[in-house]
Amino acid sequence: MSMNTKQQKPILLVAHMQNASGIRHATGFHAPDPFWYLRHRGKHHLIVSVLEAGRAQEAARRCGGEVWTPERLRLSRDARRMSDSALALLRQLRLRHVEVDPAFPLAMAEQLRSAGIRVDVLKEQPFPKRQVKTENELRAIAVSQRAAVAAMRRASRLLQQAQTDRQGYLCVGSRRLTSEAVRREINIALLERDCIGSGTIVSCGAAAAEPHDRGSGPLKAGLPIVIDIFPQHMRTGYWGDLTRTFMKPPVERKWIDLWRTVRAAHEAALRQVKPGVSFRSVHRAAQAAMEQRGYRTDLSAAQPIGFIHSIGHGVGLDVHEDPFVGKKTRLRSGHVITIEPGFYFPGQGGVRIEDLVVVTPEGAKIPVHCPYGWKV
Amino acid sequence: MSMNTKQQKPILLVAHMQNASGIRHATGFHAPDPFWYLRHRGKHHLIVSVLEAGRAQEAARRCGGEVWTPERLRLSRDARRMSDSALALLRQLRLRHVEVDPAFPLAMAEQLRSAGIRVDVLKEQPFPKRQVKTENELRAIAVSQRAAVAAMRRASRLLQQAQTDRQGYLCVGSRRLTSEAVRREINIALLERDCIGSGTIVSCGAAAAEPHDRGSGPLKAGLPIVIDIFPQHMRTGYWGDLTRTFMKPPVERKWIDLWRTVRAAHEAALRQVKPGVSFRSVHRAAQAAMEQRGYRTDLSAAQPIGFIHSIGHGVGLDVHEDPFVGKKTRLRSGHVITIEPGFYFPGQGGVRIEDLVVVTPEGAKIPVHCPYGWKV
Repeated sequence: MSMNTKQQKPILLVAHMQNASGIRHATGFHAPDPFWYLRHRGKHHLIVSVLEAGRAQEAARRCGGEVWTPERLRLSRDARRMSDSALALLRQLRLRHVEVDPAFPLAMAEQLRSAGIRVDVLKEQPFPKRQVKTENELRAIAVSQRAAVAAMRRASRLLQQAQTDRQGYLCVGSRRLTSEAVRREINIALLERDCIGSGTIVSCGAAAAEPHDRGSGPLKAGLPIVIDIFPQHMRTGYWGDLTRTFMKPPVERKWIDLWRTVRAAHEAALRQVKPGVSFRSVHRAAQAAMEQRGYRTDLSAAQPIGFIHSIGHGVGLDVHEDPFVGKKTRLRSGHVITIEPGFYFPGQGGVRIEDLVVVTPEGAKIPVHCPYGWKV
Repeated sequence: MSMNTKQQKPILLVAHMQNASGIRHATGFHAPDPFWYLRHRGKHHLIVSVLEAGRAQEAARRCGGEVWTPERLRLSRDARRMSDSALALLRQLRLRHVEVDPAFPLAMAEQLRSAGIRVDVLKEQPFPKRQVKTENELRAIAVSQRAAVAAMRRASRLLQQAQTDRQGYLCVGSRRLTSEAVRREINIALLERDCIGSGTIVSCGAAAAEPHDRGSGPLKAGLPIVIDIFPQHMRTGYWGDLTRTFMKPPVERKWIDLWRTVRAAHEAALRQVKPGVSFRSVHRAAQAAMEQRGYRTDLSAAQPIGFIHSIGHGVGLDVHEDPFVGKKTRLRSGHVITIEPGFYFPGQGGVRIEDLVVVTPEGAKIPVHCPYGWKV
């Protein structure tokens, strides 16, 4: 406990995603630091620091936008909070009413309001076109997915070449093979294709039962090894996403059954995918396939068991983006989504199998194939 | 132009940073997806999906916190917007007033308010202790910085070994050496030390005049090549940050002068660093050293020229974090900051030299040294 317990009022925070990808999608511009975006009468306005002005101008030339800096807005050196710039531009354009995204920072909304600007939360997505991918976007996603497949092949080869020592750990020569070592090989394979693997998962046993545990330490024979590779291409910004689960023999019957069940759920979900179908029904198809084989999910257990995440999510300039599984989400032609059933026994292990698919009138199309086999 | 121009009301967005690192600092917990954090009577509460529950519980055990899931809060399957969980916990704890960070999502604030919760924006940093680093944190930052230095050495060797072809481009054998190729080598060197280089910059000529341009295409002799390496360690989450500028002879006098000027500004800034001093005065010391040599910054030019960014920023679990250069920012012992003067001629080139330093009673301490020389 390292904080000040005299703190009186509770503090509530939400750790949230950025909306920068939507702005990148619309304008081609992205930056490591915060900046403002205004759309007015169909025109993009970017408010950036002088540091970003050159790159922003280049993007603006291509998308027909306009770039503003605190200098161009004639802000004094001392009035340079970010919201001062936005307010100055709204005044220059004589705007007294804006809509903002749900994640718009509260403090900035309050500053605009106290300056007489009406601020409402958007009821719709600001960039709805992101969901349906263009041909160029599909190509960019396929490039990242090919990198993921190449890295997965390298990882499975590494597991195949490994021996098993007397304690049942995988080893190469006299050294135990670790999650970290396999992750390093994967990430190097991604870099060779100009992709970054910032969160690559190589997890085994109990760690693999925690879908977001990246994994660490020596890998063991006989237990599922979950490898989840989601590369972002450094130039285009588009992501891929791929998961396979491997096991080094000898493997107990229960893990092979589990693997086959998840694979069957994966097939059932893929068959369900087509335009007009609800994303939730795809989830249900996978869950039904698991239940048919006696694998029941229990989310209210002290340690939840089973299929504890959703069947998938959209992929594009964010690795998790719309469409998400939700009450009203229907799949559309051109959506790029993951199909990733998984089943987890807390403290023991889990299996997940994931492909990235394009929704087409003919159903789910897997743009880049990767073998499924568990045996290494 | 790809958007709907019939859109009536203007849309205003801010592309902003996350506050997830502060929560990670306080609790040890971080997750790729959004989650809630509540601090009440000095105790940390995490509201996460079942997907994260296991990892969150492990973190909570270590920091004396408590973990909540929608299931534990007895939310029905349909009432599972993120803010429903926060509201349910506030009610369970009988809290009617919370403070939130300035970047708190507006829509969530409005939902809490309409449920009768008073929501105020915090006047102070929620995690002020992040600024002053502990011994463990200094060690973790040094590990990342050592990776940056190792990668910089590999990059400079690569530039050294390159020849120059008839058109003045660097080449290795018959192939031109590109920004992309050098970046790949850097990022592989980082991976070998379990670090990710998600934004590594290798830029030359006009691109190097844009401090946030990552660089692309063939590298040219005679022009400054700016290499900015900021690795994040995959396990600890701590960052390093390092920039050097190289030139392949023959180099015109004006670039050598510029390099020496930036190096002198760098030394002047380093000399200024000590506890109690304002961060802005460190900036001014660098700027004065440049002006003394006739290098004037003009931020109001159509294309801003000169020292167009601040002298540095804090580094920790975020690569850009407090302390930032601001009206009132004073340096304190245990701050970890960058000292990175740069000077840029738009369309032509720029030079930046950056070290990561620890503020100590004896002044700036560079925890990991890296040679400065420009000649490769």
